[in-house]
Amino acid sequence: MTDTIDKTYSELFGRLDFHAPFSSGTSSAGQPKGKVIDYVTGIPDFDLLPRRIFAEAFAGVMDSIDAFSSLRYSPYPGVEQLRVAIARQRHTRPENVLITDGATQGIFLAASAVLNPGDHILVENPTFPFAIKTFRALGLHVDVVPVGAGGIDVQALEDKLRSGIRYKALYTIPDFQNPTGVSQDVVTKEALTGLADRYGFVIIADSPYRDLWFNNSPAEFPQEQRTAHDSGHLIEIGSFSKVLGPGWRTGWIITDERRLASLSVFRRSVDAHPSGVSQYVIAHLMQREDGWYETFLNHSRQVYGARADILHAALAEAFGERIRQRKPQGGYFLWAEFDESMNPASPRNAQALADASIRLVPGGAFYPLWDASSAARLAFCHAPIADLREGAARLAEVLFG
Amino acid sequence: MTDTIDKTYSELFGRLDFHAPFSSGTSSAGQPKGKVIDYVTGIPDFDLLPRRIFAEAFAGVMDSIDAFSSLRYSPYPGVEQLRVAIARQRHTRPENVLITDGATQGIFLAASAVLNPGDHILVENPTFPFAIKTFRALGLHVDVVPVGAGGIDVQALEDKLRSGIRYKALYTIPDFQNPTGVSQDVVTKEALTGLADRYGFVIIADSPYRDLWFNNSPAEFPQEQRTAHDSGHLIEIGSFSKVLGPGWRTGWIITDERRLASLSVFRRSVDAHPSGVSQYVIAHLMQREDGWYETFLNHSRQVYGARADILHAALAEAFGERIRQRKPQGGYFLWAEFDESMNPASPRNAQALADASIRLVPGGAFYPLWDASSAARLAFCHAPIADLREGAARLAEVLFG
Repeated sequence: MTDTIDKTYSELFGRLDFHAPFSSGTSSAGQPKGKVIDYVTGIPDFDLLPRRIFAEAFAGVMDSIDAFSSLRYSPYPGVEQLRVAIARQRHTRPENVLITDGATQGIFLAASAVLNPGDHILVENPTFPFAIKTFRALGLHVDVVPVGAGGIDVQALEDKLRSGIRYKALYTIPDFQNPTGVSQDVVTKEALTGLADRYGFVIIADSPYRDLWFNNSPAEFPQEQRTAHDSGHLIEIGSFSKVLGPGWRTGWIITDERRLASLSVFRRSVDAHPSGVSQYVIAHLMQREDGWYETFLNHSRQVYGARADILHAALAEAFGERIRQRKPQGGYFLWAEFDESMNPASPRNAQALADASIRLVPGGAFYPLWDASSAARLAFCHAPIADLREGAARLAEVLFG
Repeated sequence: MTDTIDKTYSELFGRLDFHAPFSSGTSSAGQPKGKVIDYVTGIPDFDLLPRRIFAEAFAGVMDSIDAFSSLRYSPYPGVEQLRVAIARQRHTRPENVLITDGATQGIFLAASAVLNPGDHILVENPTFPFAIKTFRALGLHVDVVPVGAGGIDVQALEDKLRSGIRYKALYTIPDFQNPTGVSQDVVTKEALTGLADRYGFVIIADSPYRDLWFNNSPAEFPQEQRTAHDSGHLIEIGSFSKVLGPGWRTGWIITDERRLASLSVFRRSVDAHPSGVSQYVIAHLMQREDGWYETFLNHSRQVYGARADILHAALAEAFGERIRQRKPQGGYFLWAEFDESMNPASPRNAQALADASIRLVPGGAFYPLWDASSAARLAFCHAPIADLREGAARLAEVLFG
């Protein structure tokens, strides 16, 4: 069928210089030095994405009894086959699964359903900045709870809940938190649902990286909260974006049936449903009798785990004692804290990074209320392996000043 | 490649009885008589949808330099190639085109951007009921303007605008109006934009059927309003759903650049962007050097035009003087008005229709404030041709009583 479909990312885009538009470092001299190293973008390793298998799956859908359903309107909660496949994968029931247009829509639907303009929401500090933009666009007051080595600080959360302000929701990233990479264990997750019941707020648990664990699958929230008809206190958000690619625009919400029914009515007005084409292609991939999807997930875990190790080791070697980093256990990102003199957001360092063609996200971007960090989030997910290594050395050279 | 991909709808679903779940007439006897005739559903003729060509286009995207872009995050306003293709098709500039997740999302984004809860919006009477659901979900007050043979009644609209209530938007379906099928000529469209300028409201012009004209392409809104940097008074909504299938979940908004920029920021929070996969497949289809898309559109126009003629002639033959219908000039629907005794929504007639396995939408469903009609909207788009004919005869038999 094809000429380029089996080519790797580097073969395709190295040859065609396609990467250039995504790597515009601004140099003071107008001429960035060397190849751009991109630690910013949270997208999959393109070489991992099986384009031929995607094309075969798509042709398979068009050639199946599902063709008609894939091209017409889907049910508002999503395509049944996909709800079943996600329920199996995520240990819940299809009735608790609503298909979304990706985690971004999951956050929008959840926040719109739970909170009204003027309401108060708690978020982690630091956290995913696009969620904050959404909450502010919806007219919410955002307040923060610190994150420690085991995820959100439960004691600090309870202090907030007792402060007299009525918080209607907590937005948390329970697994491989963005940006810090930390995960909540089962004790923390049980503590959160306990507090939610006691203080009457909703946990919006956004976990797009959950399936990309390197050694151990993350803990679950209590099962009775996850599959209840009417628990009312837990909305879990997931996505295929980090596994199969954001371009499918397909994710999910897991919540109790009553909440799901009201989300489903609201989403009818928002965009009716996600692409039926995407939903059926993904369902066909997950349902393959040869277990392709699980094999693919396992392979992805190995690839991202190896990438994390490479960046972690390279930074340790380049920075020695002058970096505090946690070895990532899953996901896409490594969170590195530096001495204050090495703050990548300082004007001197920001300029030096641009001049050295290094793109990263300074830690401050993840703090909704104040910038308390001399840190950076470094994506290890998609850049060429050689860049991960070379970038670490170049980064140290720049920040050592 | 395939076993079923070239089969027709009837071969596939006739054989497999797949149509059954979509045709649940409720009979008083529990046993609807005869095959269900579905005049309800506004979906494409499945036999028209080129599944093999879709599969080839998808494989082509995966095998092209666009594979990477299709699988990663798209720009918030949408994929550039598709914006260019739509701009060419719709006689505007790519800068004025925002890709949406279908017209449903277009309506949601437009209304969210223009109006706040408590604001007043004017709609046509009758109109598309799902839009009304969205406006009410957004907390808007809905008021109505009648529709005549040339579309919205401009004089009645101006009377409303002078009434002292501040209307911030008009929701109109300018071409092949749903449900009446009427279209606004250029004089009406100019009058609308003139009133919008004078009274300071925004026209939300929803035109999902526009490309499916049978004899003449519908009139355009004034070009200077359509391509301005900052006209501020016109938001046009379009979709591929009626042409290529709703399952792609891809449509567009055409508006001035300033409005587009703010819509684009808001949509980042709503769902980031539509499926990149869908956007690239459609862009590839529209850009084919053999002009496939225009050929396909022309063929679709002929098929739907022939379907409209068949239903129109069959109803005329079956009802004689006892029906008032307008021969459809485009789109999916025929609007039929009956003597009051034949009102399909009367309890006796509704039951008789269910017993006779005829599904249609009674006219009252399209009136936001009151039910003033003894009418029905009959979809001629997707049912087997024989059903269109047989249904007309069966419908007359039932309603004649």
